[in-house]
Amino acid sequence: MTAGCDLCRLLAGFDAASVDGASAAPLVWRDDRLAVILVDEPGYPGFARVVWHDHVREMTDLSPQDRDRIMQAVWVVEQAQRETMSPHKVNVASFGNMTPHVHWHMIPRYTDDAHFPNPTWGAKQREPDAATVASREALLPQLRAAIVKKLNHA
Amino acid sequence: MTAGCDLCRLLAGFDAASVDGASAAPLVWRDDRLAVILVDEPGYPGFARVVWHDHVREMTDLSPQDRDRIMQAVWVVEQAQRETMSPHKVNVASFGNMTPHVHWHMIPRYTDDAHFPNPTWGAKQREPDAATVASREALLPQLRAAIVKKLNHA
Repeated sequence: MTAGCDLCRLLAGFDAASVDGASAAPLVWRDDRLAVILVDEPGYPGFARVVWHDHVREMTDLSPQDRDRIMQAVWVVEQAQRETMSPHKVNVASFGNMTPHVHWHMIPRYTDDAHFPNPTWGAKQREPDAATVASREALLPQLRAAIVKKLNHA
Repeated sequence: MTAGCDLCRLLAGFDAASVDGASAAPLVWRDDRLAVILVDEPGYPGFARVVWHDHVREMTDLSPQDRDRIMQAVWVVEQAQRETMSPHKVNVASFGNMTPHVHWHMIPRYTDDAHFPNPTWGAKQREPDAATVASREALLPQLRAAIVKKLNHA
């Protein structure tokens, strides 16, 4: 654990909590190398992150085997998002400018979401319809179950 | 080739031109499956894209083998960017909201660039120093050479 790293702190909190406990609610799945979490990003239900357990800065600081391992989890999450939430597109990104600890953002995108066709980090295009967002939030239990099932069998 | 797709059109232009010809200047490397290009993004020398040749929408529409193949090229470019341009961080992203044809953005980031610590799609933070940007542009021949060498031996 690296002092001052938000992701190291988050992962340490998961270690201390039951995976299924309420205190670890954002956590969907983890093993000894990585964790999958759902992010509470307003207007973007299904926004997920895959976080590498160790404090590593760049993907190319990981071994090829570890790179493959985290990317396999990224594709599992993308597939689960597509199957359960039918997004128009999935956005996948790893920045780490503020938190240089390897993690991937996977975001189900819809043509009526707040920023489409911009990245979610770009200029907002509209106020999303609350009922539409709520209907997507209702799919989150299915998304969580799909991610867990796929990763348990990966 | 899919009509109306900017990336299909770009790749068709590469097919018609000599790889080393001036008309294909952004092209750094290609084989029958993917192309690596350098993007002329003001203030962001070294901004590269890896573009899959076929018009495929999502990474999870590719076979596992093809996903691995494009990601290997992404890591080669990241490694070359780090070795030749010493960025503070590398940003890696695949959106495809406007052009749903699998492609990856790899962006060398510096604490003094226009948007840091935001993604380059976020709010601009400052006007970058022209001499600093020029000194990074001067590294592009080395970056191109490193990408070509690594991909020829991958």
